[in-house]
Amino acid sequence: MKRERILITNDDGINSKGLRALINVAREFGDVVVVAPEQGMSGMSHSITMYNPLFIRTLKIEDDLKVYACEGTPVDCVKVAIDALMPEPPTLVLSGINHGANTNMSVIYSGTMGAAREGSTYNIPSIGLSHISHDVNKDLTVAMHYTREVIKAVLANDRPEYLCLNVNVPDLPMNEIKGVKFCRQAMGHWVEDFDKKSDPRGREYYWLVGSFRNRDKDATDTDEWAVNNGYVSIVPILQDVTNYSTLDCISHWDL
Amino acid sequence: MKRERILITNDDGINSKGLRALINVAREFGDVVVVAPEQGMSGMSHSITMYNPLFIRTLKIEDDLKVYACEGTPVDCVKVAIDALMPEPPTLVLSGINHGANTNMSVIYSGTMGAAREGSTYNIPSIGLSHISHDVNKDLTVAMHYTREVIKAVLANDRPEYLCLNVNVPDLPMNEIKGVKFCRQAMGHWVEDFDKKSDPRGREYYWLVGSFRNRDKDATDTDEWAVNNGYVSIVPILQDVTNYSTLDCISHWDL
Repeated sequence: MKRERILITNDDGINSKGLRALINVAREFGDVVVVAPEQGMSGMSHSITMYNPLFIRTLKIEDDLKVYACEGTPVDCVKVAIDALMPEPPTLVLSGINHGANTNMSVIYSGTMGAAREGSTYNIPSIGLSHISHDVNKDLTVAMHYTREVIKAVLANDRPEYLCLNVNVPDLPMNEIKGVKFCRQAMGHWVEDFDKKSDPRGREYYWLVGSFRNRDKDATDTDEWAVNNGYVSIVPILQDVTNYSTLDCISHWDL
Repeated sequence: MKRERILITNDDGINSKGLRALINVAREFGDVVVVAPEQGMSGMSHSITMYNPLFIRTLKIEDDLKVYACEGTPVDCVKVAIDALMPEPPTLVLSGINHGANTNMSVIYSGTMGAAREGSTYNIPSIGLSHISHDVNKDLTVAMHYTREVIKAVLANDRPEYLCLNVNVPDLPMNEIKGVKFCRQAMGHWVEDFDKKSDPRGREYYWLVGSFRNRDKDATDTDEWAVNNGYVSIVPILQDVTNYSTLDCISHWDL
């Protein structure tokens, strides 16, 4: 089997358990370069650092494993890895394993998925991986198993160009997982029940506490349904965010 | 004419000229609430602040104009406005006027468009507006004119649900603008020619300097083509980022 050049990042930061789990799986497939954020970057979406320098700390340089920490966002990590640190571009980009679900509309807020989508803009097959539990000490054996299976499938099959996959693994023991489902993103929106408080000096502040209102509650073809019904969900992610059906509707507007 | 309740934000921050221009146009249509970031938030995409409080400064409270500055991202501004600050939800969300283009793949990095898309997740018609010049002192008369025209069209026509528009205005005098074009997003990707330097203490850093590689150079139906050929571009933006054609291709994979 050809050895892959695998770039790994995440949004929980360089010290997260999910990152270590992903590195361990990836090394079975090839040489690994890790460029991960110094700090937790959850909710950073597809953001980039435009007005600050990106400091890079080199943590490990071995033939088959190089590890860097970057003071930027997950997307910054992918950019600096591909365009500056790696002598040859990666053949696969992996992001995760995230501690927490990135199903439904969460995909548009997710730093994990921002990084995966960035990889795919270079036309490098890219996979974002999440375990739906937020417990940062979670046993990730099951998530690692499905990470391995998804990587195998991506490498073994003819792939559409610009491939980006959003993989979510339910919080279940192996024998309760029913399999893998290819799905669409569940639609809905996050409503914030802001927690309003005052700091010790009397300044008022708000703290985001969201809950997801699922408009697709009755649908069985969504990622949200899949992970809540014992399946690993896989949603392929777009780069072209043009809404073509709306374009048809509005292009006769007199303007 | 019914008075609208208009929420305004941006990603260049509370003191930008583009924000003031947008406020002036919006007040022709209704009561305005401004919640804009304290600092510049360019490139912040659809990011949210999860692990820090959002401090809000109240700058102005009048019957028809309320202005707040928020220590968060453009999407945070929309969320805190709709879910905490406004007694009734807005009937229209406007983001901009951005100093700099948000055509092509830039839409996925753009804080301006993150905020507009967030508004549309609440099913409130939302418009992101950009002038393609980065000059923060630019005369915005032309951009204001087209902002007004697009708002009129959105209010006058039957609208598809979850409407989000990405509007870009070329850097031309009024008499050289050929009109408005409904288009799709130009595809391609941003390559970074990282500027690598050392700080006074010898720490190496990288600074993002991107240039866009347009894969749609020959297409005449893209936003990139439109703004480079004298048209104001309007691209409707998706919330569902499922790649359905890829889903068809890969759903037979053995997994």
